[in-house]
Amino acid sequence: MPNKKIEELPGKTVERLSQYRRLLFNSVELGKTNIYSHELARMMNLTPVQVRRDLMLIGYSGSQSKGYVIKDLISLIGKIIDSDTGQRIAIMGMGNLGRAITSYFTGKREKLSIVAAFDNDPQKYDRIIAGVPCYHINKLKEVVQKENIGIAILTVAPQATHEATKLMLEAGVKGILNYTSVPVSVPEGVFLEEYDIITSLEKLAFLVKK
Amino acid sequence: MPNKKIEELPGKTVERLSQYRRLLFNSVELGKTNIYSHELARMMNLTPVQVRRDLMLIGYSGSQSKGYVIKDLISLIGKIIDSDTGQRIAIMGMGNLGRAITSYFTGKREKLSIVAAFDNDPQKYDRIIAGVPCYHINKLKEVVQKENIGIAILTVAPQATHEATKLMLEAGVKGILNYTSVPVSVPEGVFLEEYDIITSLEKLAFLVKK
Repeated sequence: MPNKKIEELPGKTVERLSQYRRLLFNSVELGKTNIYSHELARMMNLTPVQVRRDLMLIGYSGSQSKGYVIKDLISLIGKIIDSDTGQRIAIMGMGNLGRAITSYFTGKREKLSIVAAFDNDPQKYDRIIAGVPCYHINKLKEVVQKENIGIAILTVAPQATHEATKLMLEAGVKGILNYTSVPVSVPEGVFLEEYDIITSLEKLAFLVKK
Repeated sequence: MPNKKIEELPGKTVERLSQYRRLLFNSVELGKTNIYSHELARMMNLTPVQVRRDLMLIGYSGSQSKGYVIKDLISLIGKIIDSDTGQRIAIMGMGNLGRAITSYFTGKREKLSIVAAFDNDPQKYDRIIAGVPCYHINKLKEVVQKENIGIAILTVAPQATHEATKLMLEAGVKGILNYTSVPVSVPEGVFLEEYDIITSLEKLAFLVKK
């Protein structure tokens, strides 16, 4: 199966590959070496056909009798979705949420590292917080460039969102994960993911009350 | 515009209504009283047509010259998406993420309250954490029923996810917001939202490396 179209994989497929890998890591911890498409499908509430299609898209097909070899599949997914050199990440805003995300995330993925945090609170900058050096905002551009940071996670207060985004874009980040309650926009060539806890809860609350 | 189909609003529309309201709250804080569809559209990276269609669906149309009256629109969205009596929420797992979400969320929405947390760590239960009473897991059913809790937020360790889900379903919650790295499934009549930080970061990292 040719891999020449790997760069054109849809975002949704990349999300599922990331989710498959996460389940494969769990399965390794449970001592499994092989897994069937129907097992992956059940764990993810997908059809086995969808799982097989996704994995064929990255050039992998298992054996009918033994399923997929977990170790090989983890390694292949890594080759597809990870950057060779790893991706370096900064946290913008080291409040409760910034700290929680940093602690949660640290060490979870070899190729993704949170290497710096920024805050303008004197209680926070010039310290190590949750294992990561926290700098004053005025060091942002210098640190982003020196540390070769490509992605910023925004966990600042709502009113600081636009300014934080502007600074990160000026410093040259190419991806922004926005966890504030204020939507932002980014120029072409920069990628944006946004997630708001309150929206998820309000949607659930609406569905539940029906 | 008849409202008889309100209960059938698609989930995506409810998400956008929640997001409009969030922007309207911000606008009120900035001293604004009226807002145009094109302003809301720009803030959310939507077309003005989409905004007008969503708001007509809930029976609201602004004036050509003055736009929407923010106060009225906030109140109408509340009538549509909020529960009259409010929705009561529990946090399952009071680690870093559970605490961060609780602190972040508290007081943000009148009709949604986090009223209990559960954990099996003796350092955590039988205390007030981030303003919320934390109970031992063995009190779960009793507290969920007594406190009339309809939604559970899962922030437990990956290996505890399935057990935590099972307990919450047995206790009678109707909505689950799963922040663990393990997907869960729920029976018919129960609503599920899942979000995983690592998947979002891996997707961004893939897009950025292209």
